[in-house]
Amino acid sequence: MPEPTLNDLRQAAKRIKPYAHRTPILTCESLNQQVGAQVFLKCENLQKIGAFKFRGACNAVFSLSEVEAARGVVAHSSGNHAQALALAARLRGIPAYIVMPSTAPAVKKAAVAGYGGQITFCEPTLAARESTQAEVIARTGATEVHPYNNPRVIAGQGTAALELLEDIPDLDVILAPVGGGGLLSGTAIAATECSPRIRVIAAEPERADDAYRSLQAGKILPSEHPQTIADGLLTSLGSLTFPIIQKRVEQIVTVSEAGIIAAMKFAWERTKIVIEPSAAVPLGLLWERKIDLGNLRVGVILSGGNVDLEKLPWQT
Amino acid sequence: MPEPTLNDLRQAAKRIKPYAHRTPILTCESLNQQVGAQVFLKCENLQKIGAFKFRGACNAVFSLSEVEAARGVVAHSSGNHAQALALAARLRGIPAYIVMPSTAPAVKKAAVAGYGGQITFCEPTLAARESTQAEVIARTGATEVHPYNNPRVIAGQGTAALELLEDIPDLDVILAPVGGGGLLSGTAIAATECSPRIRVIAAEPERADDAYRSLQAGKILPSEHPQTIADGLLTSLGSLTFPIIQKRVEQIVTVSEAGIIAAMKFAWERTKIVIEPSAAVPLGLLWERKIDLGNLRVGVILSGGNVDLEKLPWQT
Repeated sequence: MPEPTLNDLRQAAKRIKPYAHRTPILTCESLNQQVGAQVFLKCENLQKIGAFKFRGACNAVFSLSEVEAARGVVAHSSGNHAQALALAARLRGIPAYIVMPSTAPAVKKAAVAGYGGQITFCEPTLAARESTQAEVIARTGATEVHPYNNPRVIAGQGTAALELLEDIPDLDVILAPVGGGGLLSGTAIAATECSPRIRVIAAEPERADDAYRSLQAGKILPSEHPQTIADGLLTSLGSLTFPIIQKRVEQIVTVSEAGIIAAMKFAWERTKIVIEPSAAVPLGLLWERKIDLGNLRVGVILSGGNVDLEKLPWQT
Repeated sequence: MPEPTLNDLRQAAKRIKPYAHRTPILTCESLNQQVGAQVFLKCENLQKIGAFKFRGACNAVFSLSEVEAARGVVAHSSGNHAQALALAARLRGIPAYIVMPSTAPAVKKAAVAGYGGQITFCEPTLAARESTQAEVIARTGATEVHPYNNPRVIAGQGTAALELLEDIPDLDVILAPVGGGGLLSGTAIAATECSPRIRVIAAEPERADDAYRSLQAGKILPSEHPQTIADGLLTSLGSLTFPIIQKRVEQIVTVSEAGIIAAMKFAWERTKIVIEPSAAVPLGLLWERKIDLGNLRVGVILSGGNVDLEKLPWQT
């Protein structure tokens, strides 16, 4: 699969414009003081379905031909991508088939169903998810929309950084979290193509550091028993995202669980926005001052805000 | 004291522009569906110090002559107004004297001190607060900035609605909470002067319904033992705010505690913003469908987002 170009991202931006929010960019003086940099928060937690994932899913769904679209789309996911794909499909008026492990939390099942997704449950193993998805495709002819290893999805995710750079062109650094690498590779294409001087740095939980290790090793290493509160970042890099990240991302920095939680709480308390732990990982990088970004202008893609308000990590 | 004019509000908007955030206006499809109206959220929780109060304090502080300003400003408050005045004074480089009851929560004392406010503690009675403030004025010559019964404060608070109407001119209704009435009267001046067809409706907790009763009685009735989670709305109307509200506000609607909490939680969960209970009161009005606003375009001033994350109302 070819790497998406800047033009692909710009086409994606046009394609999703009628459906996606242009999310606000917030600044917060107390955050700046806390981390010693000038921070611009691109609030994808305020995006539809509460996460950047809507951008990629929407671009993929609206890129399909009429014939393809009529057969629907399919993904196996229990997270934000499932909701994003269900909503994007509903907006185009086509079916979304979502394969979910039967063990997924009730709230996630309800959310996907609420957006009109047709759920097929399976055993909670990767093999079962893949075989169940293959059955759905055989039965329906639906197009698979992979959550990150898909050029249209990557192009869609990159539109958040395009908007950020349109509004704040003179950034020194852009930070994004990394899980499967869809958001990070889209962000890196946007940033490095728009302005070669912008540094793209990724943040990853210490306890799910497969992308960090992969970049060191020069090959994709799997995510082994990751145990982090940042449950959106458990997946491994893909064959499409890895080379983009190798080429365009300056470095991946790991962040402790304590740093993620402290930064998350600070964002809620002082910036007054609800962000999920995965979105707090780049803030945790700033919080822990793992690298010197002193007085730089730092854009941060806040990836999402889907959390269970009954179980907050700072509560005992 | 004269009622502020639309021109006063426009002057205030110019005066505070270099210091205040132009807060974003958010929309949320699931909120619209839930309440059966098209809702535009003016996010003053994302304002500096986390509340609209910064607008009024900033306008008051930057309206002072050099001679007045040099002597500083004073208020008795333990809430958002104290932080707002402290920050506005710091931005102008003048002292802010804040009279606070010694029983105020440590976090509020720390917040005011953090913005450079000089705190004088007193007994937790209105008489002690007023006599202590009088002593501070006698000693320093500072100018009192009342939290709501002050035309410059009202003009400042009205700038939030001015911005909302600039961005979304074709609203049918504007909702705001009412406590002392500063935000409500500023909002009402902005709305009724900019567009005579816009209805201004206020929301008040059932358990602190003095403004509702005052409007019925045709005279200011005191707030008697109010017991509501919306702790920003405990005060009574003032001699300046009451006639503005009588003249320009269509009605005041009361909201139950359960409605306030349900709406607050929904805003956190679905809109991904942190709002305080007082800000959730107008949302509670929509939530409980106390009046018919079906399919109307409804602007809501979300007043603030200062909450204690350790004590959330939906937790047992």
